Amino acid sequence: MSELIKEITGVSWSQIATLSGPSHAEEVSRDVATAVVAGSRHLSTAREVREIFRTDAFRVYSSTDIVGVELGGSLKNIIAIAAGIADGAGFGDNTKAALMTRALVEITRLGVTMGAKIQTFSGLSGMGDLIVTCMSRHSRNRYVGEQIGKGRRLSEILNEMVMVAEGIKTTRSVNQLKQKYTTDTPICDEVYRVLFEEKNPHHAVRDLMTRDPKEETPV
Amino acid sequence: MSELIKEITGVSWSQIATLSGPSHAEEVSRDVATAVVAGSRHLSTAREVREIFRTDAFRVYSSTDIVGVELGGSLKNIIAIAAGIADGAGFGDNTKAALMTRALVEITRLGVTMGAKIQTFSGLSGMGDLIVTCMSRHSRNRYVGEQIGKGRRLSEILNEMVMVAEGIKTTRSVNQLKQKYTTDTPICDEVYRVLFEEKNPHHAVRDLMTRDPKEETPV
Repeated sequence: MSELIKEITGVSWSQIATLSGPSHAEEVSRDVATAVVAGSRHLSTAREVREIFRTDAFRVYSSTDIVGVELGGSLKNIIAIAAGIADGAGFGDNTKAALMTRALVEITRLGVTMGAKIQTFSGLSGMGDLIVTCMSRHSRNRYVGEQIGKGRRLSEILNEMVMVAEGIKTTRSVNQLKQKYTTDTPICDEVYRVLFEEKNPHHAVRDLMTRDPKEETPV
Repeated sequence: MSELIKEITGVSWSQIATLSGPSHAEEVSRDVATAVVAGSRHLSTAREVREIFRTDAFRVYSSTDIVGVELGGSLKNIIAIAAGIADGAGFGDNTKAALMTRALVEITRLGVTMGAKIQTFSGLSGMGDLIVTCMSRHSRNRYVGEQIGKGRRLSEILNEMVMVAEGIKTTRSVNQLKQKYTTDTPICDEVYRVLFEEKNPHHAVRDLMTRDPKEETPV
């Protein structure tokens, strides 16, 4: 988004910031304690946004890694679909936690090749937002995954939905980005196959589980 | 544990490994897809354990960071108590996700000073196990936190429990370790005050929310 804003408006990077993190609006509006991160290429801008938004119920951290903050918030929607598929297809808590953890490793790896910092993905806009999204019954991305996991077709689910599940487009984008960055993203690849090539989720998990054994080295 | 085993048995490091990760036993026994990590100071040992345990439903990664694997599995119990307190005291999903994320940053920071590798805490024995523990109704640590959050006293809760909630001892240990390592662990500190000094959880969250604003820099 920040690149689009820059391109279209022509303002300088010091005028652009992103606010992101685990922040369901209905909770923020009720003053439920919430923490997010303000990212800007200019630390002074990130700090300024932090000071404008922070209250005793809304804690804002600052970061100069706007690329990481934005990528985490966007890419985590693919993981939310994966978590939903695991829920819908009847996998357990172990499977869901493993998918979330290993998928975060993947998007971290991809993000770093795109210029983001590793640590940002372990922060509020990465892991934090991922936790809220994957656990929430309100997440549209998780919902789409759950319906797919139950055996429904994507077109049928999308026809019924009024809101947009942006993770579907993000899954396509990452599939295209892969050709440019050649990063290893096995879970994102399987989400793509389940969504767009009607691969059976159980076969997808089997194929993930039986890949060559590896060192954990999470990045 | 590995240090105790070494000390008591006198075996060499190449004979010691730890298997850890999000692995509820009742799911593993039903062949629900599960992924864990085998840690040993010797890569060859970690790989050997990996090959012994792995099946199509139980994926094992290898790691030479046995310190990180063990610390993550242990320290995450403090975070599970914090997450339980947030649940019991009626905080929202935003609060819980923020606590989990920022607390993982804390234990990563502490772990690194104790010799662990940063990335291990973003792996299956860190973030993965944390997700399963904080979301599970079966976690004893989360349960103790929830009861505390509802206003009950620790002694009263412990009197009723047959099983051990090891995170309570871990909270004490970290409080002692701090004197040695001087790491900043605000969330672990508040858990200590809520558990052992009868601090009101709402005051603890308020004190966390109103700390000096900071860069996110998650480690």
